[in-house]
Amino acid sequence: MIQLYFHPISNPSLLPLFVAAAGGLEVERKMVDLQNQEQHGDDFKRVNPFARVPAMRDGDLFLGESGAIARYLARKSGTDIYSEDIAEAALIDQWCDFIAHHIRANVARVQFNRFVAPLVGQEPDPKSVEMGLEFLAKNLPHVELALDRDGHLHGDRLTLADIALVAAMEPQFTAKLDMSDYPITAAWLDEQRKSDWYQTVHTHFGAEMGL
Amino acid sequence: MIQLYFHPISNPSLLPLFVAAAGGLEVERKMVDLQNQEQHGDDFKRVNPFARVPAMRDGDLFLGESGAIARYLARKSGTDIYSEDIAEAALIDQWCDFIAHHIRANVARVQFNRFVAPLVGQEPDPKSVEMGLEFLAKNLPHVELALDRDGHLHGDRLTLADIALVAAMEPQFTAKLDMSDYPITAAWLDEQRKSDWYQTVHTHFGAEMGL
Repeated sequence: MIQLYFHPISNPSLLPLFVAAAGGLEVERKMVDLQNQEQHGDDFKRVNPFARVPAMRDGDLFLGESGAIARYLARKSGTDIYSEDIAEAALIDQWCDFIAHHIRANVARVQFNRFVAPLVGQEPDPKSVEMGLEFLAKNLPHVELALDRDGHLHGDRLTLADIALVAAMEPQFTAKLDMSDYPITAAWLDEQRKSDWYQTVHTHFGAEMGL
Repeated sequence: MIQLYFHPISNPSLLPLFVAAAGGLEVERKMVDLQNQEQHGDDFKRVNPFARVPAMRDGDLFLGESGAIARYLARKSGTDIYSEDIAEAALIDQWCDFIAHHIRANVARVQFNRFVAPLVGQEPDPKSVEMGLEFLAKNLPHVELALDRDGHLHGDRLTLADIALVAAMEPQFTAKLDMSDYPITAAWLDEQRKSDWYQTVHTHFGAEMGL
Protein backbone atom coordinates (compact mmCIF):
# COMPACT_ATOMS: atom_id res chain seq x y z
CA MET A 1 0.00 0.00 0.00
CA ILE A 2 1.10 3.57 -0.66
CA GLN A 3 2.54 5.24 2.43
CA LEU A 4 2.07 8.98 2.93
CA TYR A 5 4.31 10.75 5.43
CA PHE A 6 2.86 13.94 6.84
CA HIS A 7 2.43 16.19 9.83
CA PRO A 8 -0.71 18.14 10.75
CA ILE A 9 1.18 21.43 11.09
CA SER A 10 2.65 21.02 7.58
CA ASN A 11 0.35 22.77 5.11
CA PRO A 12 2.04 21.12 2.08
CA SER A 13 1.19 17.73 3.64
CA LEU A 14 -2.52 18.37 3.11
CA LEU A 15 -2.55 18.29 -0.68
CA PRO A 16 -1.39 14.66 -1.17
CA LEU A 17 -3.77 13.49 1.57
CA PHE A 18 -6.70 15.28 -0.07
CA VAL A 19 -5.76 13.95 -3.53
CA ALA A 20 -5.49 10.36 -2.29
CA ALA A 21 -8.95 10.70 -0.71
CA ALA A 22 -10.50 12.40 -3.77
CA GLY A 23 -8.91 9.83 -6.10
CA GLY A 24 -10.15 6.90 -4.02
CA LEU A 25 -6.64 5.61 -3.31
CA GLU A 26 -6.06 3.67 -0.14
CA VAL A 27 -3.01 5.01 1.65
CA GLU A 28 -1.30 4.30 4.93
CA ARG A 29 -0.78 7.59 6.77
CA LYS A 30 2.50 7.89 8.61
CA MET A 31 2.82 10.84 10.93
CA VAL A 32 6.40 12.09 11.20
CA ASP A 33 7.24 13.52 14.60
CA LEU A 34 8.58 16.91 13.52
CA GLN A 35 8.64 18.17 17.13
CA ASN A 36 11.23 15.50 17.93
CA GLN A 37 13.15 15.98 14.65
CA GLU A 38 12.18 12.57 13.28
CA GLN A 39 12.52 14.06 9.77
CA HIS A 40 16.28 14.37 10.30
CA GLY A 41 16.68 10.76 11.42
CA ASP A 42 18.29 8.14 9.17
CA ASP A 43 15.07 6.14 8.82
CA PHE A 44 13.10 9.04 7.43
CA LYS A 45 15.94 10.32 5.26
CA ARG A 46 15.87 6.98 3.45
CA VAL A 47 12.27 7.88 2.50
CA ASN A 48 13.01 11.53 1.73
CA PRO A 49 16.63 12.72 1.69
CA PHE A 50 15.29 16.31 1.69
CA ALA A 51 14.22 15.62 5.31
CA ARG A 52 10.78 17.17 4.82
CA VAL A 53 7.14 16.21 4.87
CA PRO A 54 5.16 15.39 2.87
CA ALA A 55 6.86 12.33 1.45
CA MET A 56 5.54 9.19 -0.20
CA ARG A 57 6.53 5.59 -0.72
CA ASP A 58 4.88 3.42 -3.34
CA GLY A 59 6.85 0.18 -3.55
CA ASP A 60 10.28 1.12 -4.91
CA LEU A 61 9.30 4.73 -5.56
CA PHE A 62 10.20 7.30 -2.93
CA LEU A 63 9.01 10.86 -3.50
CA GLY A 64 9.23 14.21 -1.80
CA GLU A 65 7.60 17.57 -2.62
CA SER A 66 3.88 18.12 -2.23
CA GLY A 67 3.06 19.01 -5.84
CA ALA A 68 4.99 16.09 -7.34
CA ILE A 69 3.36 13.60 -4.96
CA ALA A 70 -0.08 15.07 -5.62
CA ARG A 71 0.30 14.82 -9.40
CA TYR A 72 1.60 11.24 -9.13
CA LEU A 73 -1.35 10.20 -6.95
CA ALA A 74 -3.81 11.96 -9.24
CA ARG A 75 -2.40 10.14 -12.30
CA LYS A 76 -2.20 6.84 -10.44
CA SER A 77 -5.86 7.15 -9.38
CA GLY A 78 -6.90 7.02 -13.02
CA THR A 79 -9.73 9.43 -12.22
CA ASP A 80 -10.52 12.67 -14.01
CA ILE A 81 -9.06 14.87 -11.26
CA TYR A 82 -6.06 15.00 -13.65
CA SER A 83 -5.86 14.27 -17.37
CA GLU A 84 -3.70 12.12 -19.61
CA ASP A 85 -4.18 14.62 -22.43
CA ILE A 86 -1.03 16.75 -22.37
CA ALA A 87 -2.86 19.99 -23.20
CA GLU A 88 -5.50 19.51 -20.52
CA ALA A 89 -2.87 18.36 -18.03
CA ALA A 90 -0.99 21.58 -18.74
CA LEU A 91 -4.08 23.69 -18.02
CA ILE A 92 -4.49 21.93 -14.67
CA ASP A 93 -0.74 22.30 -13.99
CA GLN A 94 -0.99 26.00 -14.76
CA TRP A 95 -3.49 26.50 -11.96
CA CYS A 96 -1.52 24.27 -9.58
CA ASP A 97 1.60 26.36 -10.20
CA PHE A 98 -0.35 29.60 -9.88
CA ILE A 99 -1.70 28.43 -6.53
CA ALA A 100 1.64 27.17 -5.23
CA HIS A 101 3.60 30.30 -6.14
CA HIS A 102 1.08 33.11 -5.85
CA ILE A 103 -1.48 31.89 -3.30
CA ARG A 104 0.03 29.24 -1.01
CA ALA A 105 3.40 30.97 -0.60
CA ASN A 106 1.70 34.22 0.43
CA VAL A 107 -0.92 32.65 2.70
CA ALA A 108 1.98 30.80 4.35
CA ARG A 109 4.04 33.93 5.02
CA VAL A 110 1.06 35.75 6.53
CA GLN A 111 0.17 32.73 8.66
CA PHE A 112 3.76 32.29 9.77
CA ASN A 113 4.05 35.84 11.04
CA ARG A 114 0.57 36.17 12.50
CA PHE A 115 0.23 32.73 14.05
CA VAL A 116 3.36 30.54 14.09
CA ALA A 117 6.02 33.14 15.00
CA PRO A 118 4.29 34.27 18.23
CA LEU A 119 3.74 30.60 19.18
CA VAL A 120 7.41 29.69 18.83
CA GLY A 121 8.74 32.92 20.32
CA GLN A 122 9.99 34.45 17.03
CA GLU A 123 9.65 38.12 16.18
CA PRO A 124 6.97 38.58 13.50
CA ASP A 125 8.07 40.47 10.37
CA PRO A 126 5.41 43.12 9.52
CA LYS A 127 7.04 43.81 6.14
CA SER A 128 6.60 40.15 5.16
CA VAL A 129 2.92 40.23 6.19
CA GLU A 130 2.38 43.41 4.20
CA MET A 131 3.97 41.92 1.07
CA GLY A 132 2.06 38.66 1.47
CA LEU A 133 -1.25 40.54 1.70
CA GLU A 134 -0.33 42.73 -1.26
CA PHE A 135 0.45 39.69 -3.45
CA LEU A 136 -2.76 37.96 -2.35
CA ALA A 137 -4.76 41.07 -3.28
CA LYS A 138 -3.24 40.82 -6.78
CA ASN A 139 -3.83 37.10 -7.20
CA LEU A 140 -7.05 36.13 -5.41
CA PRO A 141 -9.16 38.13 -7.92
CA HIS A 142 -8.09 35.64 -10.65
CA VAL A 143 -9.42 32.81 -8.49
CA GLU A 144 -12.64 34.69 -7.73
CA LEU A 145 -13.20 35.32 -11.44
CA ALA A 146 -12.57 31.70 -12.47
CA LEU A 147 -14.83 30.24 -9.77
CA ASP A 148 -17.57 32.76 -10.57
CA ARG A 149 -17.40 31.87 -14.27
CA ASP A 150 -16.99 28.10 -14.15
CA GLY A 151 -17.57 26.87 -10.61
CA HIS A 152 -14.15 25.20 -10.84
CA LEU A 153 -10.65 26.39 -11.65
CA HIS A 154 -10.48 24.13 -14.69
CA GLY A 155 -13.40 22.77 -16.68
CA ASP A 156 -16.68 21.70 -15.09
CA ARG A 157 -15.42 19.11 -12.64
CA LEU A 158 -13.25 18.82 -9.54
CA THR A 159 -9.56 18.63 -10.49
CA LEU A 160 -6.18 18.69 -8.81
CA ALA A 161 -6.27 22.48 -9.26
CA ASP A 162 -9.37 22.88 -7.06
CA ILE A 163 -7.93 20.53 -4.44
CA ALA A 164 -4.67 22.51 -4.45
CA LEU A 165 -6.63 25.71 -3.83
CA VAL A 166 -8.50 24.22 -0.88
CA ALA A 167 -5.24 22.95 0.63
CA ALA A 168 -3.46 26.27 0.08
CA MET A 169 -6.29 28.22 1.70
CA GLU A 170 -6.52 26.04 4.81
CA PRO A 171 -4.35 28.44 6.88
CA GLN A 172 -6.77 31.31 6.11
CA PHE A 173 -8.27 31.17 9.60
CA THR A 174 -5.05 31.17 11.63
CA ALA A 175 -3.66 33.72 9.14
CA LYS A 176 -6.76 35.86 9.87
CA LEU A 177 -7.26 36.56 6.17
CA ASP A 178 -10.07 38.94 5.32
CA MET A 179 -12.00 37.20 2.54
CA SER A 180 -14.78 39.79 2.24
CA ASP A 181 -13.54 40.93 -1.19
CA TYR A 182 -13.80 37.32 -2.42
CA PRO A 183 -17.30 36.15 -1.47
CA ILE A 184 -17.54 33.55 -4.25
CA THR A 185 -14.22 31.98 -3.29
CA ALA A 186 -15.13 32.03 0.41
CA ALA A 187 -18.49 30.31 -0.24
CA TRP A 188 -16.87 27.82 -2.65
CA LEU A 189 -14.25 26.89 -0.05
CA ASP A 190 -17.02 26.35 2.53
CA GLU A 191 -18.73 23.97 0.09
CA GLN A 192 -15.53 22.02 -0.62
CA ARG A 193 -14.99 21.58 3.11
CA LYS A 194 -18.21 19.58 3.26
CA SER A 195 -16.90 17.03 0.73
CA ASP A 196 -15.93 13.49 1.70
CA TRP A 197 -12.32 13.95 0.58
CA TYR A 198 -11.95 16.93 2.90
CA GLN A 199 -13.84 15.48 5.86
CA THR A 200 -11.96 12.17 5.76
CA VAL A 201 -8.59 13.86 5.94
CA HIS A 202 -9.48 16.33 8.62
CA THR A 203 -11.24 13.92 10.91
CA HIS A 204 -8.10 11.83 10.77
CA PHE A 205 -5.84 14.83 11.38
CA GLY A 206 -7.79 15.74 14.47
CA ALA A 207 -7.56 12.19 15.77
CA GLU A 208 -3.82 12.03 15.24
CA MET A 209 -3.29 15.31 17.03
CA GLY A 210 -5.41 14.06 19.92
CA LEU A 211 -7.90 16.86 19.29
CA MET B 1 4.12 27.51 -34.61
CA ILE B 2 4.29 27.68 -30.81
CA GLN B 3 4.59 31.25 -29.55
CA LEU B 4 6.54 31.93 -26.35
CA TYR B 5 6.00 35.26 -24.62
CA PHE B 6 8.88 36.36 -22.43
CA HIS B 7 11.00 39.21 -21.18
CA PRO B 8 14.76 39.09 -20.55
CA ILE B 9 14.43 40.44 -17.00
CA SER B 10 11.90 37.72 -16.12
CA ASN B 11 13.81 34.77 -14.66
CA PRO B 12 10.78 32.42 -14.96
CA SER B 13 10.76 33.19 -18.72
CA LEU B 14 14.07 31.41 -19.14
CA LEU B 15 12.91 27.87 -18.37
CA PRO B 16 10.41 27.47 -21.24
CA LEU B 17 12.91 29.00 -23.68
CA PHE B 18 15.63 26.59 -22.54
CA VAL B 19 13.25 23.61 -22.69
CA ALA B 20 12.07 24.47 -26.20
CA ALA B 21 15.71 24.68 -27.32
CA ALA B 22 16.74 21.46 -25.53
CA GLY B 23 13.69 19.63 -26.89
CA GLY B 24 14.33 20.76 -30.46
CA LEU B 25 11.00 22.60 -30.71
CA GLU B 26 10.77 25.53 -33.06
CA VAL B 27 9.14 28.46 -31.29
CA GLU B 28 8.38 32.04 -32.16
CA ARG B 29 9.71 34.27 -29.41
CA LYS B 30 7.51 37.21 -28.53
CA MET B 31 9.05 39.78 -26.24
CA VAL B 32 6.46 41.50 -24.04
CA ASP B 33 7.29 45.10 -23.25
CA LEU B 34 7.03 44.96 -19.45
CA GLN B 35 8.54 48.44 -19.09
CA ASN B 36 5.53 49.85 -20.95
CA GLN B 37 3.03 47.58 -19.16
CA GLU B 38 2.20 45.59 -22.29
CA GLN B 39 1.34 42.64 -20.01
CA HIS B 40 -1.66 44.56 -18.68
CA GLY B 41 -3.00 45.36 -22.14
CA ASP B 42 -6.07 43.58 -23.53
CA ASP B 43 -4.10 41.88 -26.30
CA PHE B 44 -1.72 40.17 -23.92
CA LYS B 45 -4.40 39.35 -21.37
CA ARG B 46 -6.13 37.28 -24.05
CA VAL B 47 -2.95 35.19 -24.12
CA ASN B 48 -2.47 35.11 -20.34
CA PRO B 49 -5.21 36.55 -18.12
CA PHE B 50 -2.72 36.44 -15.22
CA ALA B 51 -0.92 39.31 -17.02
CA ARG B 52 2.52 37.77 -16.52
CA VAL B 53 5.36 36.36 -18.56
CA PRO B 54 6.17 33.70 -19.48
CA ALA B 55 3.12 32.67 -21.45
CA MET B 56 2.60 30.33 -24.37
CA ARG B 57 0.25 29.84 -27.27
CA ASP B 58 0.08 26.58 -29.19
CA GLY B 59 -2.91 26.77 -31.51
CA ASP B 60 -5.98 26.89 -29.27
CA LEU B 61 -3.99 26.31 -26.10
CA PHE B 62 -3.02 29.34 -24.04
CA LEU B 63 -0.84 28.74 -20.99
CA GLY B 64 0.75 30.75 -18.23
CA GLU B 65 3.15 29.75 -15.45
CA SER B 66 6.72 28.80 -16.17
CA GLY B 67 6.67 25.27 -14.77
CA ALA B 68 3.44 24.28 -16.53
CA ILE B 69 4.68 25.62 -19.87
CA ALA B 70 8.03 23.89 -19.43
CA ARG B 71 6.43 20.52 -18.68
CA TYR B 72 4.07 20.87 -21.64
CA LEU B 73 6.94 21.68 -24.01
CA ALA B 74 9.03 18.83 -22.62
CA ARG B 75 6.17 16.34 -23.16
CA LYS B 76 5.37 17.78 -26.57
CA SER B 77 9.01 17.45 -27.66
CA GLY B 78 8.75 13.67 -27.25
CA THR B 79 12.37 13.63 -26.08
CA ASP B 80 13.72 12.03 -22.93
CA ILE B 81 14.08 15.33 -21.07
CA TYR B 82 10.77 14.26 -19.50
CA SER B 83 9.19 10.81 -19.26
CA GLU B 84 5.80 9.31 -20.05
CA ASP B 85 6.29 6.79 -17.24
CA ILE B 86 4.34 8.25 -14.33
CA ALA B 87 6.87 7.15 -11.70
CA GLU B 88 9.84 8.59 -13.58
CA ALA B 89 7.86 11.75 -14.41
CA ALA B 90 7.19 12.14 -10.68
CA LEU B 91 10.90 11.87 -9.86
CA ILE B 92 11.64 14.63 -12.37
CA ASP B 93 8.71 16.68 -11.05
CA GLN B 94 10.05 16.27 -7.52
CA TRP B 95 13.29 17.99 -8.49
CA CYS B 96 11.48 20.68 -10.47
CA ASP B 97 9.31 21.49 -7.43
CA PHE B 98 12.33 21.38 -5.13
CA ILE B 99 14.11 23.86 -7.38
CA ALA B 100 11.11 26.16 -7.82
CA HIS B 101 10.28 26.39 -4.12
CA HIS B 102 13.61 26.01 -2.37
CA ILE B 103 16.18 27.29 -4.86
CA ARG B 104 14.59 29.68 -7.36
CA ALA B 105 12.41 31.50 -4.83
CA ASN B 106 15.41 32.16 -2.61
CA VAL B 107 17.82 33.12 -5.37
CA ALA B 108 15.12 35.53 -6.56
CA ARG B 109 14.67 37.24 -3.19
CA VAL B 110 18.42 37.72 -2.78
CA GLN B 111 18.75 39.04 -6.32
CA PHE B 112 15.77 41.34 -5.89
CA ASN B 113 17.22 43.01 -2.82
CA ARG B 114 20.85 43.09 -3.90
CA PHE B 115 20.35 44.04 -7.55
CA VAL B 116 16.80 45.01 -8.60
CA ALA B 117 15.72 47.11 -5.60
CA PRO B 118 18.65 49.56 -5.82
CA LEU B 119 18.08 49.84 -9.60
CA VAL B 120 14.42 50.78 -9.24
CA GLY B 121 14.89 52.99 -6.19
CA GLN B 122 13.36 50.60 -3.65
CA GLU B 123 14.74 50.07 -0.15
CA PRO B 124 16.44 46.63 0.05
CA ASP B 125 15.20 44.36 2.85
CA PRO B 126 18.25 42.87 4.66
CA LYS B 127 16.05 40.42 6.59
CA SER B 128 14.77 38.98 3.31
CA VAL B 129 18.34 38.57 2.01
CA GLU B 130 19.37 36.87 5.23
CA MET B 131 16.47 34.41 5.08
CA GLY B 132 17.07 33.72 1.38
CA LEU B 133 20.73 32.91 2.04
CA GLU B 134 19.82 30.76 5.03
CA PHE B 135 17.33 28.70 2.97
CA LEU B 136 19.86 28.34 0.12
CA ALA B 137 22.45 27.08 2.60
CA LYS B 138 19.97 24.39 3.64
CA ASN B 139 18.97 23.39 0.12
CA LEU B 140 21.98 23.74 -2.18
CA PRO B 141 23.79 20.86 -0.40
CA HIS B 142 21.11 18.47 -1.76
CA VAL B 143 21.89 19.67 -5.27
CA GLU B 144 25.65 19.37 -4.68
CA LEU B 145 25.23 15.80 -3.44
CA ALA B 146 23.02 14.72 -6.34
CA LEU B 147 25.29 16.22 -9.01
CA ASP B 148 28.37 14.72 -7.35
CA ARG B 149 26.77 11.27 -7.27
CA ASP B 150 25.03 11.13 -10.64
CA GLY B 151 26.20 14.06 -12.78
CA HIS B 152 22.50 14.94 -13.20
CA LEU B 153 19.62 15.61 -10.84
CA HIS B 154 17.70 12.63 -12.19
CA GLY B 155 19.15 9.57 -13.89
CA ASP B 156 22.11 9.71 -16.24
CA ARG B 157 20.81 12.17 -18.80
CA LEU B 158 19.75 15.80 -19.13
CA THR B 159 16.16 16.26 -17.93
CA LEU B 160 13.74 19.07 -17.22
CA ALA B 161 15.08 19.04 -13.65
CA ASP B 162 18.61 19.95 -14.76
CA ILE B 163 17.30 22.65 -17.07
CA ALA B 164 15.17 24.06 -14.24
CA LEU B 165 18.26 24.24 -12.05
CA VAL B 166 20.26 26.11 -14.68
CA ALA B 167 17.39 28.58 -15.19
CA ALA B 168 16.90 29.09 -11.45
CA MET B 169 20.60 29.74 -10.89
CA GLU B 170 20.95 32.31 -13.67
CA PRO B 171 20.57 35.26 -11.28
CA GLN B 172 23.51 33.97 -9.18
CA PHE B 173 25.85 36.62 -10.59
CA THR B 174 23.66 39.69 -10.05
CA ALA B 175 22.61 38.17 -6.70
CA LYS B 176 26.34 37.91 -5.86
CA LEU B 177 25.91 34.38 -4.51
CA ASP B 178 28.99 32.83 -2.99
CA MET B 179 29.17 29.35 -4.55
CA SER B 180 32.47 28.33 -2.93
CA ASP B 181 30.74 25.75 -0.73
CA TYR B 182 29.27 24.13 -3.85
CA PRO B 183 32.20 23.58 -6.22
CA ILE B 184 30.58 20.66 -8.06
CA THR B 185 27.40 22.61 -8.70
CA ALA B 186 29.35 25.68 -9.80
CA ALA B 187 31.46 23.66 -12.26
CA TRP B 188 28.39 21.77 -13.52
CA LEU B 189 26.54 25.04 -14.16
CA ASP B 190 29.57 26.33 -16.10
CA GLU B 191 29.43 23.20 -18.26
CA GLN B 192 25.68 23.53 -18.93
CA ARG B 193 26.20 27.13 -19.99
CA LYS B 194 28.32 25.85 -22.89
CA SER B 195 25.46 23.73 -24.26
CA ASP B 196 23.61 24.61 -27.45
CA TRP B 197 20.26 24.98 -25.67
CA TYR B 198 21.76 27.55 -23.33
CA GLN B 199 23.79 29.42 -25.92
CA THR B 200 20.89 29.69 -28.38
CA VAL B 201 18.62 31.30 -25.82
CA HIS B 202 21.15 33.69 -24.43
CA THR B 203 22.49 34.92 -27.72
CA HIS B 204 18.95 35.77 -28.63
CA PHE B 205 18.28 37.44 -25.29
CA GLY B 206 21.26 39.66 -25.76
CA ALA B 207 20.18 40.56 -29.27
CA GLU B 208 16.67 41.46 -28.14
CA MET B 209 17.99 43.66 -25.37
CA GLY B 210 20.27 45.41 -27.83
CA LEU B 211 23.31 44.14 -25.90
